[in-house]
Order: sequence, then C-alpha cells, then structure tokens
Amino acid sequence: MPRFVVTYRIFASGIEEASERAAGIALEQTVEIPRDVVPHGYVEDEIVGKVESVAEEEQGRQLARISYSPDSVSDELPQLLNVIFGNSSIQKGIKVVDLELGSTLAERFRGARFGVAGVRRLTRRATGGLISPVIKPQGSDAATLADIAYRCALAGADIVKDDHGLTDQHMAPFKKRCEMVCAAVARANRETGDSCLYMPNLAGRSADLMEYARFAKDCGAGGVLVMPGLFGFDLVRRLAVDATFGLPIMTHPTFLGSYVLSDTLGFTHAAMFGTLQRLAGADISIFPNVGGRFGFSAAECISIAEACRDLAGIGRPILPSLGGGMSAERAGEMKRMYGDDAVFLLGGSLLRYGDRIGEAIKELRKAFHSA
Amino acid sequence: MPRFVVTYRIFASGIEEASERAAGIALEQTVEIPRDVVPHGYVEDEIVGKVESVAEEEQGRQLARISYSPDSVSDELPQLLNVIFGNSSIQKGIKVVDLELGSTLAERFRGARFGVAGVRRLTRRATGGLISPVIKPQGSDAATLADIAYRCALAGADIVKDDHGLTDQHMAPFKKRCEMVCAAVARANRETGDSCLYMPNLAGRSADLMEYARFAKDCGAGGVLVMPGLFGFDLVRRLAVDATFGLPIMTHPTFLGSYVLSDTLGFTHAAMFGTLQRLAGADISIFPNVGGRFGFSAAECISIAEACRDLAGIGRPILPSLGGGMSAERAGEMKRMYGDDAVFLLGGSLLRYGDRIGEAIKELRKAFHSA
Repeated sequence: MPRFVVTYRIFASGIEEASERAAGIALEQTVEIPRDVVPHGYVEDEIVGKVESVAEEEQGRQLARISYSPDSVSDELPQLLNVIFGNSSIQKGIKVVDLELGSTLAERFRGARFGVAGVRRLTRRATGGLISPVIKPQGSDAATLADIAYRCALAGADIVKDDHGLTDQHMAPFKKRCEMVCAAVARANRETGDSCLYMPNLAGRSADLMEYARFAKDCGAGGVLVMPGLFGFDLVRRLAVDATFGLPIMTHPTFLGSYVLSDTLGFTHAAMFGTLQRLAGADISIFPNVGGRFGFSAAECISIAEACRDLAGIGRPILPSLGGGMSAERAGEMKRMYGDDAVFLLGGSLLRYGDRIGEAIKELRKAFHSA
Repeated sequence: MPRFVVTYRIFASGIEEASERAAGIALEQTVEIPRDVVPHGYVEDEIVGKVESVAEEEQGRQLARISYSPDSVSDELPQLLNVIFGNSSIQKGIKVVDLELGSTLAERFRGARFGVAGVRRLTRRATGGLISPVIKPQGSDAATLADIAYRCALAGADIVKDDHGLTDQHMAPFKKRCEMVCAAVARANRETGDSCLYMPNLAGRSADLMEYARFAKDCGAGGVLVMPGLFGFDLVRRLAVDATFGLPIMTHPTFLGSYVLSDTLGFTHAAMFGTLQRLAGADISIFPNVGGRFGFSAAECISIAEACRDLAGIGRPILPSLGGGMSAERAGEMKRMYGDDAVFLLGGSLLRYGDRIGEAIKELRKAFHSA
C-alpha cells in the first residue's frame, strides 16, 4: 500500500544526530514503544514509521522524510494529524515542513469541494481579487450587523463574513444573526443583481454546530467561517464531505498561532495555513497579512499563498485570504504580491466610514481595476 | 457582572511598551477594531477588555492582567479560549499565565465531575499513587490488547488505558476493542475483587464520538481518554457535563506541545496542562514526565501537578498523570516529587516483560509502599 510521507525539519548538530532523532520520531508517531520490543511481522513491516531519507538543509538543520502506513490513519483526519505530529509536537527542535499523501490517502482525503474556481463561480467574480468585509464588533445586536452587511453587499462585496468573535452570545445569537444577515444580503443581491455570499461564524457549543450549519444553509448563507484551532480540523472535514451541506468553508487562524511562530517548533506557515487547510477541505484560508498587527513576514505570507494555490497540492487549489493591512492605497502592492486569486478582508478600519461604509469597498474595487 | 481575568506574560522593553501591548490585546480579543471606532455604551463599557494592571516581572518581561465580560463568552468553552488567546496566539511575545474565572463564569464552568476524590472512590484506591499501564502497540489486534489489559488488571493496575495511537483503525476498531478489553478487565476484577478501570481512547471521526462514548459506557468502560489537541477542548466539556455519560475523563497532551515549548509563546505548562484541563472538565491530565523522551523540566512538571491539585483552582482538584520515565527503581524519587495524588503511567517498556507483564506492576506497587 503506498505510504504517506511527512517531511520534518530537525534541528540537530549533523546528519548522525538527525538520523537518530528521525528514527525516534518514526517510533514515537506510530507504535510508541522501544525498537527492541516491536512485534515482528505486520507491526514491524507496515506500521512502524520508516525513515526514507535524512539530508542536511543547512548547518544545524536537517530534513528527514518519514513514511507511514495508511493503516495507521484509516480515514480519520484527527488520527492523520496525530501521526504527523502528535507526540512529536512535545519534542523540541522539530518542525513539520511538508506532507505527501500518496495515492491511498489521496483517495480518502480529497480536499476542498469548491476551491478557487468554485468560489469564483458562486460569487460570479470571474477575475480580480475578491473583497470580503468583516461585520463586527462583538456586542452589536443582529440588526446592526445586518445593516453593515447590507451596505457592504450593496457596494459590491464578494463575501461578507462574521468577525470570528461573533459566536452564539445573547447580543446576536447565531440563528438570529444568521437569519437577519442572510435576509439583508439577499435584499442587496436582489437590488444589485450580484451574488455576494454571507459566511456566518459557525461557533457556539460544539454539539450544536452541525445543526447550525444546516440552519445557515436553509437561511441562504453562502458558506461558513470555521475555527479549526478551537473546534478541531475534523469539523472542517465533516462539513466538506457532508453531501447535504455543500457550501464553501472559510477557515480562521485563531488559536493556531503557537504552531507557527517559533522557528524550531510546530509547522511552517505554508504547512499550517496552506497544506493542513487543504487537507481538511477548506476553500478559503485566512491568515494575517504582512504589515498588519501580526508578525508574519512577506516571505511567510507568500509561502502560504503558494501552498494554497499550488496545483500539485492536496485536492483543488484554494483561495488564500489576507486579514489586516488592506486599503485602496495598498491595492496595487497587494495585487502585485498575491495576484488575483485571493480574498482580501476589510476589517475594523471599515467602521471609520460609518454610514458611508460602502465607499471603502467601491474604492478598493476601483483600485484593483486600475492597479 | 463579575468579569474574568487573564494574566498574560508580555515580553516588552518596559512597562510603557507592555501597557501599550496590553491595550492592544484588550481590543484584539474582544471587538477587534481600533479604539477610536468602538461604539459608546454597552460595547465600550462592558465588552472591550480592560487592562487591570501591568507590572514588571523581571527585566524585559511584564505581567498584564486583563479583564473580560462573561457576555463575550456565554457558556461556550471554545469562545472562552477564543477570548483568552485567539488572535493573540498569532502575536509574538505573549504567554498566558493564569485565568481567574470570577463568580459568573465559575457558575458556568464547574470543572471536573470526579477529580482526585472521585477517581480514588471509583478505583477503590484510597491512598498511594495510582498505577496505569498503557495497552499498545498500534497494529495489534483487539484480542492481543485485551490480553495485555487482563494481565495488567490482574496484577493490580488501577487504570488500564489505551495508547493514544489506538483510534478506530481496522486492526482493532474502537467498538470491538472496547468490548473485548472491557470484558477482559471485568474478568480480572471478578478474580481479584479489585476495581480496575479501563479507559479507551475516544477517537475516530468526530461525528461518531458521542455515540462511541455511550457505547464504551454500556460495555463497562471505567472512563475515556480524550485528545483535546485533536478534537478540541469542547469534547472534554461535552462529556464532563453530559448527565447520561457520567464517567471520568483522562486527557492526553498529543498535538498540544507547540503551545508550551517556546518560552515566549502560548501557555505556561501549568496553564495548559493544569488550568485548561480543569476548565474543560478533565479528571486526570497526562503530561510527559521529566527524564523521559520529552523535554519538560522538573520545575515545569511540578508546576503542572500543583496547578492540577491547587484547591483554589477551577472546580475540583484533579490528578496529574505522568507519562514516561517510570519504573520500580524510580518509585521513591517519583513519590517524593509528586506525592500520592498522581497517576503513574507505565508505557512501552512494559512490553519487555512479555507474559510476565503483571510483575512490573506488582514491583511498582511494592516500591511505592516501601518508598
């Protein structure tokens, strides 16, 4: 059976130490017992991880490729993550760089349902960057949020999304917010003839979320925002493969920062916000843009965008979505950096426009066209 | 309404910079808009985080206490985590140190159902350290795992737990494994008159887990192992508050390492493996012991054990559970380090004993008594 391969960056003195550590990872992530007590036969031959190669990347840094059996994973996404980086997440100096699914797991994990092309079809925005204002702040009532959404949709937004801090609080409970914002966006769409999608933040108590997702669909939502750092990546997968749900999924990076901010721990930016999101089935992956309130570098942001859109990646290419630092003034720069296949979020600074909030969206659209 | 307070360690040049950063966190974790556009009234007065104090901890390191409204959280654990450290997880130089729930949230988040006293009652082990062998390796069939469990229970184990790499794979699917191991442990208990608890690893596809939990209970399982890093902390809470489930919950640290291993990111060891586990409702919190394959220091391990058992913590005191590095030779040292209210895991090295696996457990029990 074709095995899947994880590439780890190991911070060791040289090839010898890295090879020893790689052999340790191969055991740790599978049988979790000392090498000398591994049962002969199936467990030893198939289940134990195999170190395929160890190569010097630069002084003090090696790349180890370790292969694992699809049997270790079944069709379970949480268990795939467990094999990739479960206990190894607790060891220092190991970073996940890449994942090659192999043909067996590629059949089981097919990635995004919509991807770039599907989201463009639904928004009827065949070319150019997609514009996505965020409705907030937390504490507002549903009518206030619906009014902001209406103005944004009327001005030509492609996607209106909830702030990730809007969950099921009494000020604007999920169902009420969903109904009112869906109605507001539908009204704008009737007036413009456009196809703006509203994506509510699918949040609250985890027991309610699949019902909430269906409720959102019935209300006319155009997709959902999901927070895998809080609810687990399997919620994304569950929605992506649910035949009756069938809407695009946008993922939010909240609570995931600790996986990428250390140079020697966790995942690379591209692996976390590109590869893992595609693996789970996200269509749009949000991450903080360079130059905003978060410390991602331009190179890190570009690596994420490339991992989202790489044709050789898992399933369909998906849309990177830049959070923060966006304005009409920066449209040219952002277009040069990310190209057209990206979703540009417009956040808190939008509220400065007050009743003229639509103008910010029109300005950005115009700036994209002329850039 | 009494607010809850999060203490953050901020790595800044001094009080002035730390105060600015704290003000930024207070906005970021709630309204996520610039200060000058925060709506007056309820949002400004209640929802926006309030910096309660900023104090120098040592050169280059400050402690900021920020209070938040229970309205921001409702009764949702994921949203509580979102407010504590959602987007701030993506900013460098911020570490969560402490959480004070306040009386309002303390009513909503009541912690462990069993805790130290409850687990002692169920295991009928009134005094002394609890011994918990782990059945493995992944790739074994259910009969093999049941046989290991039987031998361990017969020898006086208090808790037999699944390795966290056993999920729902075809080699030993959850239900089959659960039935066979429960039957094996029940047989041992009939022979010994003891009350060894079997805790299967509640894993597979997230959609199945609540049904699997009930299935485990019906089979006679004595609790479940849960992996919050993979399935979200809300799965722990859901089980802890489910009136019909009503079994102890043991949590595993897999996939959570990236939150604690950097000095300047994530959570302190005590906050992650003590406070958050109690908040979610775990009764037993596993973490890697000093001296094993993982890099936690003795001081970090002790800080976790203290956070688990602190009488002033959230809900009932719970049992710290040490993974790795345990043997009869180290029993005295471990007892001095952790005291009696702890669960000592016996992992892969157990398999070295082969058919005499029970002897390892008897030796450890004896060593505890004489230590």
